[in-house]
Amino acid sequence: MSSVLVVGTIALDSIKTPFGDKKEILGGSGVYAAVAASFFAGTELIGPIGADFPPEHLKFLASRKIGTAALQKIDGPTFRWGGYYEYDMNQAHTLETKLNVLTQFDPQIPDSLKASPYVFLANIDPELQLKVIGQLKKPKLLVADTMNFWIESKRDVLHKLIKQVDYMVMNDGEIRQFMETPNIPLAARRLIELGCKGVIVKKGEHGALLFTGSTHFAAPSYPQELLCDPTGAGDSFGGAFLGYLAKTDDIGPENIRRAVIIGSVMASFNIEDFSLERLKRLKKKEIRERYEAVRGFSKFSSLEV
Amino acid sequence: MSSVLVVGTIALDSIKTPFGDKKEILGGSGVYAAVAASFFAGTELIGPIGADFPPEHLKFLASRKIGTAALQKIDGPTFRWGGYYEYDMNQAHTLETKLNVLTQFDPQIPDSLKASPYVFLANIDPELQLKVIGQLKKPKLLVADTMNFWIESKRDVLHKLIKQVDYMVMNDGEIRQFMETPNIPLAARRLIELGCKGVIVKKGEHGALLFTGSTHFAAPSYPQELLCDPTGAGDSFGGAFLGYLAKTDDIGPENIRRAVIIGSVMASFNIEDFSLERLKRLKKKEIRERYEAVRGFSKFSSLEV
Repeated sequence: MSSVLVVGTIALDSIKTPFGDKKEILGGSGVYAAVAASFFAGTELIGPIGADFPPEHLKFLASRKIGTAALQKIDGPTFRWGGYYEYDMNQAHTLETKLNVLTQFDPQIPDSLKASPYVFLANIDPELQLKVIGQLKKPKLLVADTMNFWIESKRDVLHKLIKQVDYMVMNDGEIRQFMETPNIPLAARRLIELGCKGVIVKKGEHGALLFTGSTHFAAPSYPQELLCDPTGAGDSFGGAFLGYLAKTDDIGPENIRRAVIIGSVMASFNIEDFSLERLKRLKKKEIRERYEAVRGFSKFSSLEV
Repeated sequence: MSSVLVVGTIALDSIKTPFGDKKEILGGSGVYAAVAASFFAGTELIGPIGADFPPEHLKFLASRKIGTAALQKIDGPTFRWGGYYEYDMNQAHTLETKLNVLTQFDPQIPDSLKASPYVFLANIDPELQLKVIGQLKKPKLLVADTMNFWIESKRDVLHKLIKQVDYMVMNDGEIRQFMETPNIPLAARRLIELGCKGVIVKKGEHGALLFTGSTHFAAPSYPQELLCDPTGAGDSFGGAFLGYLAKTDDIGPENIRRAVIIGSVMASFNIEDFSLERLKRLKKKEIRERYEAVRGFSKFSSLEV
């Protein structure tokens, strides 16, 4: 078993969905990813927290055996995001973003973590992602997520980032926007031509697609009727993907496919409740069962005639 | 091998996409479905044509060995549809609908076809679909398609129809609209509760989902970069689905899954060119190869740990 390093945001989210209205709940791309990864492998989280970050959340991360020694404590308030989802829940609408201590975050990777084999750069400013990469010592697998905000504001930085990572993880809207085509297979090909090994396109209820220069994999989604809050689905996907690969320490194509399904399964649990609530009570047995259920949903045999 | 009866529209379409602008080309739900079915099984087509219907199109149908003896020739012009697609091609925009002889269509099933074992009621007025059902003698498999126009104008008739068919075929937008929920698995459950055995939800680039009361199947799409004109994709899906089941004469759950993939594969070919042009030059070998390619794209194995 190997271990995972996650770098990302740590947030207090205020979220309204048709199923509830929550104030200042634990969130952030780094938190969702690290918690998901922690189901599979030892996980270290690096990101900025403010002086007001509730100690109970640190206790929760510790309870999941997530290393938090390298969290950067910055004087000032923790990053906050406020948003809502309409009934169809496909699109997050931002009401408020208070970057707070995020503006001062300068990621420092401790010497003990510089040789981390599996690294997930969760969604955060791509300039910070590049700063992290500059400190790493040849990770076995380096995966980065991003979002529309950076595509719009730091396209050139993203181009540099893509050349330095193994896989990008993006949602369907983001890759279409970034590669300027509505056609996902074409967008994926163009993105890979920019210099990464592959891309995983997260499509929410429509599953996920993995593209590399030579192979393609279509992962179905779990048919989820219990969608409560989609926040963090993509982050938990990415964290679980890396966590499973670290656990098995096998980045061959067949195991990468399993990891995509594991990511999809963890995302499907994550959206069943607000914040990390569903993952808090999730059992490994449930993950295995849902994995096999998804396998059953997608099997079909060769033509007989 | 068994045979397929298709009832649907026969049209002259004028279509504009980013890849071209075509006037009065062969189209219609019945035509697309019958041509797709004809790759697998003997196929009969019933629908209305006007006095102006070009004989070359009848010759083409005959060249595919599609029975056209029961086509209803009505004095007046053939049904015409005009529309366009934006660059993302997900949504057809109607410019003009001239029902013409479609308004006089009164489907009469000849005695020789009343006991057809595999019947596809392609998209047409659900009152006409019910009239057809009233003339059939216990088909082995009865499948119906519909569209948003009928959901808006004849919801109660659709409720009656659903009780009498085995499977409904709808696209994702239609089933959401009909069952009044954005959640597809929930919408599918509600639809099945209305009285059919199952539903196939066509999602275009996102593949297709099959729901029955007790099982679920997620079919990936072929990663298609060559999308030229999406018209008829759903109809060719339905026709190929029925055609394959008729050819194999097996409606067991495993074969139904194969038929969904075959439907998806035929739709993926259909959209590569305007009208029936791609299907005209399609070879059975290409169908088998793409089927196996899709199988390769969606395979993954059990967790090893």
